[in-house]
Amino acid sequence: MKFGGTSVADVDRIRNVARHVKREVDAGHDVAVVVSAMAGKTNELVGWCREASPLHDAREYDVVVASGEQVTSGLLAITLQSLGVTARSWQGWQIPISTSNAHGAARILDIDGAELVRRFEERKEVAVISGFQGICRETGRITTLGRGGSDTSAVAVAAAIRADRCDIYTDVDGVYTTDPRVVPRARRMDKIAFEEMLELASLGAKVLQVRSVELGMVHNVRVFVRSSFDKPEDIDPHGMPPGTLICNEEEIVEQQVVTGIAFSKDEAQISIRRVQDKPGVAAAIFGPLAEANINVDMIVQNVSGDGATTDLTFTVPAADYERAAKVLADSRARIGYERLDGANDVAKVSVIGIGMRSHAGVAAQAFKALAERGINIRAITTSEIKFSLLIEAAYTELAVRTLHSLYGLDK
Amino acid sequence: MKFGGTSVADVDRIRNVARHVKREVDAGHDVAVVVSAMAGKTNELVGWCREASPLHDAREYDVVVASGEQVTSGLLAITLQSLGVTARSWQGWQIPISTSNAHGAARILDIDGAELVRRFEERKEVAVISGFQGICRETGRITTLGRGGSDTSAVAVAAAIRADRCDIYTDVDGVYTTDPRVVPRARRMDKIAFEEMLELASLGAKVLQVRSVELGMVHNVRVFVRSSFDKPEDIDPHGMPPGTLICNEEEIVEQQVVTGIAFSKDEAQISIRRVQDKPGVAAAIFGPLAEANINVDMIVQNVSGDGATTDLTFTVPAADYERAAKVLADSRARIGYERLDGANDVAKVSVIGIGMRSHAGVAAQAFKALAERGINIRAITTSEIKFSLLIEAAYTELAVRTLHSLYGLDK
Repeated sequence: MKFGGTSVADVDRIRNVARHVKREVDAGHDVAVVVSAMAGKTNELVGWCREASPLHDAREYDVVVASGEQVTSGLLAITLQSLGVTARSWQGWQIPISTSNAHGAARILDIDGAELVRRFEERKEVAVISGFQGICRETGRITTLGRGGSDTSAVAVAAAIRADRCDIYTDVDGVYTTDPRVVPRARRMDKIAFEEMLELASLGAKVLQVRSVELGMVHNVRVFVRSSFDKPEDIDPHGMPPGTLICNEEEIVEQQVVTGIAFSKDEAQISIRRVQDKPGVAAAIFGPLAEANINVDMIVQNVSGDGATTDLTFTVPAADYERAAKVLADSRARIGYERLDGANDVAKVSVIGIGMRSHAGVAAQAFKALAERGINIRAITTSEIKFSLLIEAAYTELAVRTLHSLYGLDK
Repeated sequence: MKFGGTSVADVDRIRNVARHVKREVDAGHDVAVVVSAMAGKTNELVGWCREASPLHDAREYDVVVASGEQVTSGLLAITLQSLGVTARSWQGWQIPISTSNAHGAARILDIDGAELVRRFEERKEVAVISGFQGICRETGRITTLGRGGSDTSAVAVAAAIRADRCDIYTDVDGVYTTDPRVVPRARRMDKIAFEEMLELASLGAKVLQVRSVELGMVHNVRVFVRSSFDKPEDIDPHGMPPGTLICNEEEIVEQQVVTGIAFSKDEAQISIRRVQDKPGVAAAIFGPLAEANINVDMIVQNVSGDGATTDLTFTVPAADYERAAKVLADSRARIGYERLDGANDVAKVSVIGIGMRSHAGVAAQAFKALAERGINIRAITTSEIKFSLLIEAAYTELAVRTLHSLYGLDK
């Protein structure tokens, strides 16, 4: 069971979390709980680090920031005990949760689950584990996994103790076919395959951290996204409560061709016209952008009519648009191109579904439907289980609703 | 160097602390710094534990509360680095600072200072150490030393690294002959012997924690109490700044007979009249009080005129007066006494000085001077280097000023 910052924002909410845990214990389950810092605490701690020095040592940042989860784990253990549940807190270094030494964005290398399992068996003790943190084995120093890392901690712990399921309690009750604020007919999915969730999470659906989905896929940990606001006493711990199960595609009986529509509005498009079509030109373009820390997303290259030059289109975050244009103007001599076009009012709409692997013509349906609505497609990229379209930002909602209906996702 | 909560209350004050540390480093010293939690943080954390459960597990309480020092140590390390000082933070479990498993009030058993010293030598690295916390070796769990424990951490670390001196930075600039708010002529002492400071601290002078003075005495760590509000740049790190050095009596050249006057007002007196003077009667009286968690202080026993009974007087904290009287009334049959007298408006005034060992008649001077002022002495206890007098609370200030002048302590 994993609970995020808003679910443990104060002692009252921690008590609610404890009741969720007790329900599972009473049903005979062995439980490990992973907790985040109380809402707002991490920001406060990060703020102090920045105030102390804008260029702070990431190792010390980790020492400061990891304290937030430590507080929650102790408080939840106390609260569980007050409900008569045997429980103890665990910090990353105590289990240990071994990570790389990339402080501030460490990767989990290994978790020793043996002691936790021994305590399940010997005394039915609930393990309350600080998420987001670990220890670097070589240096013995505290590490953190980066923002949102508690999801990753939870899935990794679940793998280490061979849990039947990893329940992620959030402020939403599952994963939706698209953003319900944009499409009121969006449906909560009962199940979604790891690969699909990976695309959805990468494309900005903020339910789960991408890395946690990857881990779930690699270690085959079924992840269940559910609401922490459900009343603990209303839930049957043996049945399946409201939520979305992220699992192997084999477990999904009624596989749909398209499972979800994702979109992001803060995109900018840059087109480089009549670039010399020769080896090394892509490096000449994207090298300077990477050095400037500008994240390039969709990349589309067209051969131009003359056969000697090419047109190259790609997207960057809207906030980096001006900066990217300047970097490219500065490198013009080295790259060699005729003209730079761009627009910072574009949106990316993505259609995801494992079924696309075996169904041809899925994207073609979208092109037709959007054309009928007068929506111009500026660029297209595809992968095995998704395709993304770049359109004018003003049409985003219309496009998402059109595709949502087109693929039979409306409830 | 040790800095308390008010000295590290926010990032600005932590920067001031860093400048103190840098001054010592620049002067060529190897420095270990022990820090408390930012002012108010410990109370906030303790409050959450109580809210979670009034009867909380002390092991989990320690997990929650120790996080406060962790934050400060990381922030100070960051700030030192921003001033160009090589520094790293250390938690109790990293050094390790091994303690007993008396969670919430653990005793330091051992500190391994080897790695800290190695880093002084190899890279002039300042060790920033979280005070107040340690680790229980057998269980691997976080422990805390109880309130004020950072002083103890500092002296213990100083002993472990064989420091020349342990500087305790506080919000006062040293130890005074008595409370300057009561006696404007109170003087800051340049030096005071461990034994004297131990009595002063036990009697309620809140400059240092008693346990830290004991440790300093046992391990012969010279402790220097000084102000964190002095401007770091105004201090000559090679000279002796304003403050009080707590040291071996041999180091104090001009030893005075009396060094300080302590007092506490929140005392209550209880007298049991005509108790049967037989073995076991003291146990019958003080056993039930101890069981009720009532702290008994001065105990005076007089043989009464008849030879078969005795009068017994002792003090308890004023807040426990009613409760103590009830406990004794309930045990009357078992104890066997005629009458219970009491007063909860009494004060204890204590006169401390190592010189008393070799000077007779020191207390007699006090009796005479107080009698001349019309101050009645209700009870007297003495030890090798101090005597305490119980008087009516209204006379406290008069008595303290009288004794302060009598023993030549006025500046």
